[in-house]
Parts: sequence; C-alpha cells; structure tokens
Amino acid sequence: MDQRRLPSEVVFHNVASVEEMETYIKVLAVRGAPAIGLAGGYGMFIAARNANTLIQAYKDLEIAAVRLGNARPTAVNLKWAITRQQAVIEDARSQLINKSENEEGLQILRNALQKEADNMLQEDMDLCRRIGEAGFSLLRDGSTVLTHCNAGGIATSGYGTALAPVYVAHEKGVHICVYADETRPLLQGMRLTAWELAANGIDVTIICDSAAPFLMSQKKIDLVIVGADRIASNGDTANKIGTYGLAVAAKAHGIPFYIAAPYSTFDPHITDGSGIPIEERGAEEVTNFLEKRFAPEKAMVYNPAFDVTPGELISGIITEAGILRPPYSQSVKAFIVNRS
Amino acid sequence: MDQRRLPSEVVFHNVASVEEMETYIKVLAVRGAPAIGLAGGYGMFIAARNANTLIQAYKDLEIAAVRLGNARPTAVNLKWAITRQQAVIEDARSQLINKSENEEGLQILRNALQKEADNMLQEDMDLCRRIGEAGFSLLRDGSTVLTHCNAGGIATSGYGTALAPVYVAHEKGVHICVYADETRPLLQGMRLTAWELAANGIDVTIICDSAAPFLMSQKKIDLVIVGADRIASNGDTANKIGTYGLAVAAKAHGIPFYIAAPYSTFDPHITDGSGIPIEERGAEEVTNFLEKRFAPEKAMVYNPAFDVTPGELISGIITEAGILRPPYSQSVKAFIVNRS
Repeated sequence: MDQRRLPSEVVFHNVASVEEMETYIKVLAVRGAPAIGLAGGYGMFIAARNANTLIQAYKDLEIAAVRLGNARPTAVNLKWAITRQQAVIEDARSQLINKSENEEGLQILRNALQKEADNMLQEDMDLCRRIGEAGFSLLRDGSTVLTHCNAGGIATSGYGTALAPVYVAHEKGVHICVYADETRPLLQGMRLTAWELAANGIDVTIICDSAAPFLMSQKKIDLVIVGADRIASNGDTANKIGTYGLAVAAKAHGIPFYIAAPYSTFDPHITDGSGIPIEERGAEEVTNFLEKRFAPEKAMVYNPAFDVTPGELISGIITEAGILRPPYSQSVKAFIVNRS
Repeated sequence: MDQRRLPSEVVFHNVASVEEMETYIKVLAVRGAPAIGLAGGYGMFIAARNANTLIQAYKDLEIAAVRLGNARPTAVNLKWAITRQQAVIEDARSQLINKSENEEGLQILRNALQKEADNMLQEDMDLCRRIGEAGFSLLRDGSTVLTHCNAGGIATSGYGTALAPVYVAHEKGVHICVYADETRPLLQGMRLTAWELAANGIDVTIICDSAAPFLMSQKKIDLVIVGADRIASNGDTANKIGTYGLAVAAKAHGIPFYIAAPYSTFDPHITDGSGIPIEERGAEEVTNFLEKRFAPEKAMVYNPAFDVTPGELISGIITEAGILRPPYSQSVKAFIVNRS
C-alpha cells in the first residue's frame, strides 16, 4: 500500500525487483520501522526469486543486502531483517554445498527466504498484539492519548506499536480519545494515523505539532505514546522529529511519556543515543506542497527526519514482554538478553 | 500587501471600505499584532472618509469600531488602535458641537482620524527601531536566533518586533544566523519571516516547528526571540501557537527566551494569561493545501491559533524602553505606568 497517497487514494503496488523495493523504502511509499523491516525481508526473497541460478542468487543477495540495508539509516529494523535473511542464506549455503548448479537448490533457497519473511510478518503481528495488551494496562475509559507520526497498523503488520494499546482498548469496548500530531513535514499523523483510527471507528483529533504543549497545559492529554526507529541499550530512543520536544513538554507537565516497540527496534550494539545515525532528508519535503514551493528561493532548510529522546524522559518502553521501566541500562539489557 | 500570497506573489490592495478592511484582517491578508492595529486605525479613517455627513460618520464609526475591534480576538493592538481613534472622535465631537450639518466639520473629523492613524504608523516605526536597539544588546557576532511565526517588518510598519534586533545587528555589520520555525498551520515563518530576512540578505534557515527542541539539544540555538499578541500585567504572553512549547524547551536547555513587543501589546486590564481569549480557527487551515484535503473526512481537528506562555518561562520582554526583567508583576506595571 503506497502510504504517500493516503488518505485520498488507496493504491497497492506489486514489487517486481530489489531496486523497486529500495525505491519504495527511500521515497516512503512504505514506512514505519517494523514495516520497512518486513519490506527489507521480502526484498531479499525477491532478489532470490529473480535470480536464474543459485550462484547468481548468492551474488544478487549480497548486493540486495547492501542496497536494502542502506535504503534508510535510522530505523534498525531494516538491518535486523536483512541480518535474519543473511542467517537463512548462510544456513542454506551450508546445506546446499555442491548443489550450486541445481535448480532445486535455488528453489530451496527461495522457499527459505520467503518462509523467513512470512515468519517475520507473522511474528510482527504477534508482537504488535502483545505490545497492545501490555500498553492497555496504562489506559482507562476516557483516556486521552497523544501520539506523533504513525506507529499504527500501516507502519507494521498488525495493530502497530504506539497505536496497539488503543486498538486493544477499542476491541474491549474501552473508549479512548486520540490526539494525532499532524507530523510535519510529511504529515504521517494527519494522513495515516488519523486515517487508520477513523477508519476503525476510533475518536481522533488532528492537531498541529506545535499545539501539543498547549494541550498538555490545558490538561487535555493523559499520556503520550509514540513508536521508535531505534532504541539504544540505555533507553535513548530515535523516533520521528518532534518526539523529543513532546518528551520535554510531557516531563514539564508531569505527563507520562511512553515508547512502544518490539525487540527488533532495540540495538544492543549502541550504548546511547549519540551513536544513532540521524537521517537528514531533502528541503523540498518541507518547502513544497503539491509541487508548489512555499519558501523563498534564498532561504536554507534543515530537515532532520528524526531526533533522539534520552531515556531520562521516558516513563516506560512498552514491549511484547511488558513495560520496561528505568533504569534502562538494566531493564533494556535484561530484555535483550531474554529475547536472544 | 496581501500576506497570504507571499512569497510567490507580492500583491497590494487598496482598501475601499470598513467591510473590506475587516475581511482582510479576518482572512489574514494583513496580520501581525502591530500591523492589524494599524489596519484598525486606518479602517476607522475609511469609515469617516466614506460617510456623507458628520452625523452619518459618527454612526458609521460606532459600527466600524465594533466590526474592526472584533475582527480578531487575541491581539490587543486592534482594540488599542480603535480606542485611540475613539478618543479622537470624542475630541472632535466636543469641538464640532453645533456643526453637525457642516461639511467642514466632517472634513475636520476625517483629517483628525487620518492624522492619528499616521501618528500610530510613525510611532510604530519608532517603537520597532527602539525595540531593535534594546534587543541588539543580547546579540553578538555569530549569534543564532530562533524565531517563530512572523514578527518582522511585514507584521508591523518598520523593523518588526522579534526581528528588529536582527535587523539592527545586520545594519551594524554584525552577522546573525536566524532559524525560522515554519509555523504551522499557515506557514508564516517559512513564507514571511524567511522571505523578508532573505530579501534583506540575512542568513535564514527554515525548520519544521517540531525540530526546534532537537536543534536546542544540538546547541544550535543561542537564544529565542518571538513577538506577542497580548501581554498580561504579570508577563504572561499570548503569541502564535507553538510559542509555549518553545519556551518550555528553551527552559529545559537553559536557553534564554525573549518576547519583543511595544507598549501597545500590553494589556493592563488582564492580570494573567488565563484572561486572554484564544482564537480558534477553522479546520481547513490545518487539513488543506492548495485546496486539496490531506486529512481523512472522519477525523476531527483542533486548531487554536495562539497559546499562552507564562511569565516564569520568559527571560525578558524587549520593549522600546529597554528589556523588562522578572518579576514582571513589578517591571510590567512600572513600564505601563510610565507609558500612559
């Protein structure tokens, strides 16, 4: 589903090649950390599907791993999914030794990659469901939840991460009001979060990003839940630009601020937020609407796509294994060890 | 100058009637607290200019005072300018008693209203200049200033308020880098602030509103200067939505946060920010770009145009009489007393 065209059009693409998948990831036709992980996983399968020999498949998969793995830098899920497929390839390679000219060998490799991508999809649905159940404990009838960007069903494969607790509540007949930051520059909050919540009959109100602290001061927000693109082992979290400001404002108002993410979003190799690469995107994302430029030609533009929220500002991290609490240097490590 | 059409077109309108002026204020063709004050002042002159008799002029001016005075609720400058013209009318009325049928009497009233509007314009230019000089003391070569919305030359009649210190620095050859929040929903920062600064050869970089706290955390901002729509006698300040969040973030980062405004923006009748009416504007300002809707039909929208920043978060208020410092309950009162 091409997320650039929502909510006015719902358009699906069949992806024919690795290059096409790479492009769809880069231009944000597919976006959301878990969803781009899955796109990367299926992209690897496509590389094998398009190869004519096993030898060719191994070569193409090496290239695909680099292309897909580098399509976007901040979300770790992409690299996580590629790494899983690389393990599948290594496994196949050791089993298929001496079968390199064999048509059957190629089919075995393809099947293994498809199966692993399907596994990741199924697993992601389960993870989302479990994140929803864990986060539901934070909600009561009438709770107002502020969210930023889109960490919902279309950023993942099930209930989403940040929106999963809301979907679980809705399923149980518990009424939740969601405030969705519009999320400049690409308006994922207005176009995607509001769209999927409204489509599911959930009460959603769009606000400009900069209005969130004012709503907090008016006591209109009970808690904040957002997704994540990468979580360092001390709990520092990269997420859509604007997340950090929400966390600062939430802290100032004594409002709980939660991150929701599955284990694949944690990066045990990174000790703190300073190690997370922050993607900087093009100026025209900010300046142009429907191809018309709204900025003067001579002005410069700075467009970081993500920011980093330090663990100190995070009340808890909602995972499939429950809510991690500070100190994260302990709880995140224990969680990662248990998962691996 | 129609500010809705900047920066792509520079279009001037001649204003023929009070109704037209009211509309231009409501639709934000003219905007910025000092500028809408002046528009109100000239609107009153237009009411008298269009009347055929002195009696008619008095009647029309009463209606005009209500229409223009209520065109927008938050900025106090509009009411301030109308009140000044009402004093001119009272003055003329006492001088012109028994001249009600007199053509000359009407002309005297018209001239007096035009002169007072011209006085306000000239005075505003002087005030802006003096605000610039006072605020310049906060800057040094290479300072980076973050601003929000547009409180520049086109929101006033001279150097503006928040941008005046930057213009004074530029005039003196002191290099300043300005970060301009784009300022959703109407993009006054991207369309107007960036346009006027770039046109004057000043270094300006546009960012999304939600990126400002991230820039603060990266130590890219030395100080914040914004304008004001109304300042209560305890220093609480209403300004464009998003100002409050900047103040909260600036506080968290130890970055000085300044308001710049002339005496006409202070409202001595209001003791604190809770007494300032906050204008709520239409949903389509948020959802539509070039008449295309980007939000799903079923989602609600909340679009407050302003927020209130409590005096505690304000490092100083830059006025034509120097920088007011906390406690504002004393410094603001002394300033207002001296000015009246």
